[in-house]
Amino acid sequence: MTVHPSAIVDPLAKVGGDVHIGAFCQIHGNVEIGDGTHIGSHCNIGHPTPRAEGRPLRVGAGSTIRSHSIFYEGSTFGHGLITGHRVTVREGTVAGAGLHIGSLADIQGDCEIGSHVHMHSNVHICQASVIEDYVWIYPFVVLTNDPHPPSSGPYVGPTLRRFSIVATHACVLPGIEIGEHALVGAAALVTKSVAPRAVVAGVPARQVTTVDEIRLEDGSPAYPWPLNFRRGYPDEVLAAWQEEFASEPTVEH
Amino acid sequence: MTVHPSAIVDPLAKVGGDVHIGAFCQIHGNVEIGDGTHIGSHCNIGHPTPRAEGRPLRVGAGSTIRSHSIFYEGSTFGHGLITGHRVTVREGTVAGAGLHIGSLADIQGDCEIGSHVHMHSNVHICQASVIEDYVWIYPFVVLTNDPHPPSSGPYVGPTLRRFSIVATHACVLPGIEIGEHALVGAAALVTKSVAPRAVVAGVPARQVTTVDEIRLEDGSPAYPWPLNFRRGYPDEVLAAWQEEFASEPTVEH
Amino acid sequence: MTVHPSAIVDPLAKVGGDVHIGAFCQIHGNVEIGDGTHIGSHCNIGHPTPRAEGRPLRVGAGSTIRSHSIFYEGSTFGHGLITGHRVTVREGTVAGAGLHIGSLADIQGDCEIGSHVHMHSNVHICQASVIEDYVWIYPFVVLTNDPHPPSSGPYVGPTLRRFSIVATHACVLPGIEIGEHALVGAAALVTKSVAPRAVVAGVPARQVTTVDEIRLEDGSPAYPWPLNFRRGYPDEVLAAWQEEFASEPTVEH
Repeated sequence: MTVHPSAIVDPLAKVGGDVHIGAFCQIHGNVEIGDGTHIGSHCNIGHPTPRAEGRPLRVGAGSTIRSHSIFYEGSTFGHGLITGHRVTVREGTVAGAGLHIGSLADIQGDCEIGSHVHMHSNVHICQASVIEDYVWIYPFVVLTNDPHPPSSGPYVGPTLRRFSIVATHACVLPGIEIGEHALVGAAALVTKSVAPRAVVAGVPARQVTTVDEIRLEDGSPAYPWPLNFRRGYPDEVLAAWQEEFASEPTVEH
Repeated sequence: MTVHPSAIVDPLAKVGGDVHIGAFCQIHGNVEIGDGTHIGSHCNIGHPTPRAEGRPLRVGAGSTIRSHSIFYEGSTFGHGLITGHRVTVREGTVAGAGLHIGSLADIQGDCEIGSHVHMHSNVHICQASVIEDYVWIYPFVVLTNDPHPPSSGPYVGPTLRRFSIVATHACVLPGIEIGEHALVGAAALVTKSVAPRAVVAGVPARQVTTVDEIRLEDGSPAYPWPLNFRRGYPDEVLAAWQEEFASEPTVEH
Repeated sequence: MTVHPSAIVDPLAKVGGDVHIGAFCQIHGNVEIGDGTHIGSHCNIGHPTPRAEGRPLRVGAGSTIRSHSIFYEGSTFGHGLITGHRVTVREGTVAGAGLHIGSLADIQGDCEIGSHVHMHSNVHICQASVIEDYVWIYPFVVLTNDPHPPSSGPYVGPTLRRFSIVATHACVLPGIEIGEHALVGAAALVTKSVAPRAVVAGVPARQVTTVDEIRLEDGSPAYPWPLNFRRGYPDEVLAAWQEEFASEPTVEH
């Protein structure tokens, strides 16, 4: 463990081997940090809250948490978590391996997040969101959960199915389901659930096409996106995709 | 007063009893912090500015300012202020009791804010905004004040009347008035003033209904919202609402 | 040089005369900070990254970087840079003199930015953006660069021509060009390039008028905006504008 001399680490914190902790960090006691994790400067990790009911913050091995980030106790992240700067994550969230969280993202807690989900900068993930494997969420996307704001609930978070994509500045209303491989266009306001492979756009969002109609410049299909984008995913994921998408149509050219 | 050993508190700061100041905070001299207030780590409180013209930052008793927040000198907050993380508040704002400010919110200064106003994460409150009692502002809402950007003004901030609600990702143009109990829908662009109890939506926003038409799942009226949401408001507020809304229609069921 | 006792400055950092460094700052070694620059508290300046390939962070003389900001090594800023709080700037960006960056702004790197560009709070400037002199970008604007997200590129950033204005909450799609003096309205989704002096609005954005049709309350032309707004620009800029806009029509009144 390499701890910057200015950092404060609670002796109760369980910190793995080869962990680096940056300047001016405060690491609270109820945390379990996996081997080889790197924590940038000015972070507050394991922030106490009674709502965590004693559950620790668990961060898997090989993670990178960039500077000025805040993680509450009571959430769990698989290995290979990578965050930008100034990320805020509340208690009660459980996420799989390989989660990317962009700078300024705000995860409000009590979310279920699959594996290899990628969130870009400044997304707002409301409480009770369900986000399945391989979802992409772009900057300034907001997920919401209160149908009649303000109310005492029940809060109904959106569900984003596997491989779905929510583009920049889109807003998803409470209880909406975004289907597998669906694409929500930039600045869309999603007021109704979106069918698998549908492309929706507008305020309010309407279906404008399907992902199967979208071509790259060379005429080949742009989607399912794992046909075209693989950077940074581990070998076992690439192998699984190979099998899952073997039967997808391709374009002669 | 409990001050973390790493925090820096100017000896001129006027700090009440039972105040807690977190790690790596810088508390400047021209501040008055009320009894029982809790300030999280990495904050910069009472940030000096010539524009404050010597006025102090005043934070009422029983407040909570979460980590990484920045408050300039020259603003005043009633008791029971509660903020999320990374809040920025400039000089010249005066707010009543019970203000909630979500994480990442950016209050640009010179605002008039009533009592028990609730702002969610990442709102942008422009200079010269007027926000009355019991207003709710949801994530990523932006209030604007320059009719012909960029200009030297006059800047005309919006006015949000009592109990009005501005939903997620909405944008309010300069000088707009949002009427009492009005509801601005998610992602709306508000280009004209909104009548009391109107519901507006779209880009640009048009009236689509009134709040009186909106029902909960059980058929009872969703609005005025104090009929359905009271969590966290003090007893005297609840008693005042009881009286104010005694004559509101209810639904047989 | 005035360094707060709690700040950490790498002895390799090249820091000019009369530089002020605030509390709890970390200044890395591969930086060149010009004379008279003021750096607020809790900053991380010169954050190392292999992508910088050894290039330093250069900040011109007379700059102000406000608290909680993060600048990577490998970018260059002319004199008179002024930032708000919590700004994040990645490597590979080159900017001219007099750049203003609002609080929470996120500049993703590899951008070309002219002189006297003003970005307001919480803008998101994607990689490979080109922003010419005198551009204004308002809160919550997002520039994007991936036509088929997620993909391996080629990423095509937008180009914002001289004196163009992008208003609050607008979103600019990949590869778009915003013409000189054009005005993108609040909450617009820009899906096609915008002609010089055009005003566009809506989702998707359509041309609604030209800037030449927009009048101030007194009947005089609102645009080109340097006719009406000059605050904070240096004398040599004002002189150049005087010449450039000498032939612009004015209104009798």
